[in-house]
Amino acid sequence: MIRMTYRIESAGNVEALAEKIASDQSTGTFVAVPGETEELKARVAARVVAIRHLEPTERPSLPEEAGEVKRFNRADVDVSFPLDAVGTDLSALMTIAIGGVYSIKGMTGIRVVDMKLPQEFAAAHPGPQFGVAGSRRLTGVEGRPIIGTIVKPALGLRPKETAELVGELLSSGVDFIKDDEKLMSPAYSPLKDRVAAIMPKILDHEQKTGKKVVYAFGISHADPDEMMRNHDLVAAAGGNAAVVNINSIGMGGVAFLRKRSKLVLHAHRNGWDILTRHGGLGMEFSVWQQFWRLLGVDQFQINGIRVKYWEPDDSFVKSFEAVSTPLFAPDDCPLPVVGSGQWGGQAPDTYRRTGGSTDLLYLCGGGIVSHPGGAGAGVRAVRQAWEAAVAGISLADYARDHIELAQSLEKFADGKGA
Amino acid sequence: MIRMTYRIESAGNVEALAEKIASDQSTGTFVAVPGETEELKARVAARVVAIRHLEPTERPSLPEEAGEVKRFNRADVDVSFPLDAVGTDLSALMTIAIGGVYSIKGMTGIRVVDMKLPQEFAAAHPGPQFGVAGSRRLTGVEGRPIIGTIVKPALGLRPKETAELVGELLSSGVDFIKDDEKLMSPAYSPLKDRVAAIMPKILDHEQKTGKKVVYAFGISHADPDEMMRNHDLVAAAGGNAAVVNINSIGMGGVAFLRKRSKLVLHAHRNGWDILTRHGGLGMEFSVWQQFWRLLGVDQFQINGIRVKYWEPDDSFVKSFEAVSTPLFAPDDCPLPVVGSGQWGGQAPDTYRRTGGSTDLLYLCGGGIVSHPGGAGAGVRAVRQAWEAAVAGISLADYARDHIELAQSLEKFADGKGA
Repeated sequence: MIRMTYRIESAGNVEALAEKIASDQSTGTFVAVPGETEELKARVAARVVAIRHLEPTERPSLPEEAGEVKRFNRADVDVSFPLDAVGTDLSALMTIAIGGVYSIKGMTGIRVVDMKLPQEFAAAHPGPQFGVAGSRRLTGVEGRPIIGTIVKPALGLRPKETAELVGELLSSGVDFIKDDEKLMSPAYSPLKDRVAAIMPKILDHEQKTGKKVVYAFGISHADPDEMMRNHDLVAAAGGNAAVVNINSIGMGGVAFLRKRSKLVLHAHRNGWDILTRHGGLGMEFSVWQQFWRLLGVDQFQINGIRVKYWEPDDSFVKSFEAVSTPLFAPDDCPLPVVGSGQWGGQAPDTYRRTGGSTDLLYLCGGGIVSHPGGAGAGVRAVRQAWEAAVAGISLADYARDHIELAQSLEKFADGKGA
Repeated sequence: MIRMTYRIESAGNVEALAEKIASDQSTGTFVAVPGETEELKARVAARVVAIRHLEPTERPSLPEEAGEVKRFNRADVDVSFPLDAVGTDLSALMTIAIGGVYSIKGMTGIRVVDMKLPQEFAAAHPGPQFGVAGSRRLTGVEGRPIIGTIVKPALGLRPKETAELVGELLSSGVDFIKDDEKLMSPAYSPLKDRVAAIMPKILDHEQKTGKKVVYAFGISHADPDEMMRNHDLVAAAGGNAAVVNINSIGMGGVAFLRKRSKLVLHAHRNGWDILTRHGGLGMEFSVWQQFWRLLGVDQFQINGIRVKYWEPDDSFVKSFEAVSTPLFAPDDCPLPVVGSGQWGGQAPDTYRRTGGSTDLLYLCGGGIVSHPGGAGAGVRAVRQAWEAAVAGISLADYARDHIELAQSLEKFADGKGA
């Protein structure tokens, strides 16, 4: 059985809408064929198995469909789908259990808040190739978060200009560097040229220091064949990671890539916000992320504490828990990527609110490169912040004998931000 | 230049948010490098080119982010992106010009309301392989809408049971039959067996009558390789169409399929509703459909007049106009597929409100199979309704000497529905 939970909001009867979802998304309305009807329903019919009423609301999520009504009933409704009705294909799951419910009339709100898949999905999908363990092995980082940064400006640098910045970042001691998710292969910076300019610096740095910095190149392309060519360029040059805009290339793009990939797939969820930002509509990240994990992304961007974007801290904390909870087995967890406005100042709250985990990639842009002592000092400051967080020492105390952290606090603390 | 139009809603300054979108989605915030900054900005920076203020609203689209404010400014903002900053890849376009804007803080609403692409996109993408002309050629229907129907119940029939129903539908004179979009290849009806059961009936009917009914099989799969195997099964058996759940398989799936496809790609937009249903959020269909047309779908489901779903008639009319308007050339238009609760009664309003077009696939489920005289009478009734609509005769008048239409009116009119 596949168990979905929908949060339904309606001026009308929530029970009737729950039954409508179960009916519409499986056998549908049809003229009964005597004798066959019961057997057919047993084969594929979805069933409402629980309804938990919530406080009514006076604020309809879809006000255009509310009319003159002033009070809207709400409930969480569990619907079970026989596995045989859907199968394990993720496009069938998305179509039947999620896509169809958004078109139903008579609701002023619908949000998919939970999804429990049966064991059969585990065997049917590859899951992450590298995940947490692979990300640690490739970077050689243990016992602390992997520290990463992003080349800025996001767009506009030519390959030679990007490579110069990468050279500076390499000497900072950072573990991971990535292209901005908006950078793929534009005319002014074709991926081929960017790889050719950057990878020798990565390999040279490895030879000199023994440390291989993982660089994630933007390889996304709507055409999977083109994306594989991008993948192959990176792999052939000795690269080992790629930024993939999962929402833009879609499930087909990710499935195709994962089956053939030699690279760590760093998932950016660009565009996801519109599916979740209104609390009465769309779906929870905990539901959405299951698709991409089964498809096999290795690292998953999920914002962080006190980010530059709209997302509140509580939402990030739920996302962190979601990606860190096995669906079927521990190795189906991707590495959570914590980013946006991070500079180390959020390390104590991040550590505390995620249950004391250091299994994460901590991504800092300005927090590293705008450090007054330069990027190297920026990286040291972030590592010091995490040392303090894990040791349970306040940043102010730890900064007394850690000069780079002290400089970070001076520059970024008290709402000044990174 | 790519020109995007965003409808922004905010308690704050709309001009500042417009500038923030242009900045965040191109060069981003960064420390200026003396001398280089201006050249780099000219290369890739997006620019706000127009702001058209709208009436403020008292009803925030994202109430959770509204605070105590009671009045929200609104404006349509045109932002131009240099083509060089994005290129012609549709995943880059989606990521840069659409995906990123949904995460920006300080807005209570954001909707992408228009997108104008430059000519370069025409050459970079295949567009429809069959489109309107190919759909007419394959069905042999000219001078009136192509009439289609759907096998019901949506899910649960075994291949033999489906094929029996298809046999009945074939003799009705219908031009096109399709699987429900929720039916792909579940264990109780593997596509292979369904094709093997149905296609001989289609071919036999063609041999006997000279009329080849187009049957669209559900071939969607999240894995493009599996989807191609599905495609090949249909093509090898002499089939010529497929239902594709574009939103579930994503741009990667559609791009991969289109390059290799021998079949008419009948696009179902299942799941799209959540991107557009709230008028202050998401995006207009006129924007979204451009991606799928460039990728190359041949037929596009867009609901209809007085449908069973939430979508109002005005929204359908705009969608019809969108898919029927060339992006670059007439042959980049897919065939509009008008469906949901249709029975012929909506033909006059459909004809009138779409500018007098019969270039469409008119899809009726219950409207055909639940006709009191059977499916054959149902098809004749729908054709009669369209004859009346085109001739400008009321259905009631035309029904006087068209018995099947009269029976349809008796059964489905006055809100009884199909």
